[in-house]
Amino acid sequence: MTDLPAIAGARCVLVLGGARSGKSRFAEAHVLAGGGRPIYLATATVGDDAEMAARIAHHRARRGDAWSTVEEPLELTATLHRLAQPGAAVLVDCLTLWLTNVMLAGRDIPAETAALAAALPELPGRVVLVANEVGLGIVPDNAMARAFRDLAGRLNQAVAATADAVVFLAAGLPLVLKACP
Amino acid sequence: MTDLPAIAGARCVLVLGGARSGKSRFAEAHVLAGGGRPIYLATATVGDDAEMAARIAHHRARRGDAWSTVEEPLELTATLHRLAQPGAAVLVDCLTLWLTNVMLAGRDIPAETAALAAALPELPGRVVLVANEVGLGIVPDNAMARAFRDLAGRLNQAVAATADAVVFLAAGLPLVLKACP
Amino acid sequence: MTDLPAIAGARCVLVLGGARSGKSRFAEAHVLAGGGRPIYLATATVGDDAEMAARIAHHRARRGDAWSTVEEPLELTATLHRLAQPGAAVLVDCLTLWLTNVMLAGRDIPAETAALAAALPELPGRVVLVANEVGLGIVPDNAMARAFRDLAGRLNQAVAATADAVVFLAAGLPLVLKACP
Repeated sequence: MTDLPAIAGARCVLVLGGARSGKSRFAEAHVLAGGGRPIYLATATVGDDAEMAARIAHHRARRGDAWSTVEEPLELTATLHRLAQPGAAVLVDCLTLWLTNVMLAGRDIPAETAALAAALPELPGRVVLVANEVGLGIVPDNAMARAFRDLAGRLNQAVAATADAVVFLAAGLPLVLKACP
Repeated sequence: MTDLPAIAGARCVLVLGGARSGKSRFAEAHVLAGGGRPIYLATATVGDDAEMAARIAHHRARRGDAWSTVEEPLELTATLHRLAQPGAAVLVDCLTLWLTNVMLAGRDIPAETAALAAALPELPGRVVLVANEVGLGIVPDNAMARAFRDLAGRLNQAVAATADAVVFLAAGLPLVLKACP
Repeated sequence: MTDLPAIAGARCVLVLGGARSGKSRFAEAHVLAGGGRPIYLATATVGDDAEMAARIAHHRARRGDAWSTVEEPLELTATLHRLAQPGAAVLVDCLTLWLTNVMLAGRDIPAETAALAAALPELPGRVVLVANEVGLGIVPDNAMARAFRDLAGRLNQAVAATADAVVFLAAGLPLVLKACP
């Protein structure tokens, strides 16, 4: 799965999928297959959430020592400008959690979304971004959850529009939504 | 994305996807690309729901003045017989909201579903129908939501079976589920 | 849809999809198209759940008399070893309900998942397994539902990795995620 011809030469890839669909594993393999210094840009911070801590430890154990790790919950676009240099390959895991952080911080979400999408084609290094698809269930009861899935859908669309390639994962298997030109 | 060869000649297209997946935008572009007088058949009525009013205004601003708009929450099949004439291109946005309206009105849902699916191949004009996929989340707690997602799934299957082409949208990008023969 | 070339020769197929996406109907047609004695291995037991009883009756009426039926809520791997003999074609409907049963019985889920995935390539008969994709909605409020969708996602990944072919259903239409080699 790491040698998917349709995305092999892509400089910027969006990996989309549901919970436990194999997004992170696919994204890691794609970063390593393409070469360059692998950098894991985590938008989660361990904090005191035991569930999240377990999930982060699970991902970290799988990645092993080849990667350097940077934690950045909020300043994603600025951090990408700094890290995604020639010879580097940055994995952003994940956009959906970053959106949550941006929302909780009370920032201007459309502006942050637009800035990220505009920056992606400018970055000299390789970037692989992981995002959750959250809009395929029943309409949520509470207004906050409805607002969040609208914002997540718009973010995914904006990033997909400027990425070179987009892949949808289900049961660990990739479907190419957008192939390299 | 408006010149997707697999659906280019289709007279009746179902556009399926999650919340904020770019369904309406894709459907509008497909209607315009195919030619004919564009008619927007809205199954939502503004009523006094502020969230819905904002969503409708957002869609209306994007479409601009080329379109004529008809609002019909319930009599979808009869309205399609009237509007989908030669030279017209009707966008139904959306089936899932129509299903909600049919359900709240206490109508015979299997009969309404069957009548719509049977009518589609008979219509002389072009028709593009937008529908939500709502069955890919966790099983909902309440029985009403479970019943609704079953009915929505059956409606989508029935319409997909008689449509000429079916497209699934994710992050604004189309996957062809059924191509023109 | 029963003569999908990409999966025609597959001995073991995973059919994935949302609620009312046409998974069971597709799986039944694929079992019958491939030949062999059709056996329906139900992981649901009627019990006293009226909703489930109606769903089972609906599926049973559609299948008709050609099939023999075995109900096994828990011992799935052992039952497959017994039933999936040369000349047989077993439909497992469905994995997600089996996972629920395993969870409620307090069994070791990673061990059960691994045993099933390891067994699939060893079975001499044909096997088609139906599973729900449940991870594409908003993050559930309650921890139990979050844990379940993680486990379901891992189960789907493990089975997809050892199956010969994997198909995703939406609106009754198949997308091939993994084709026969």
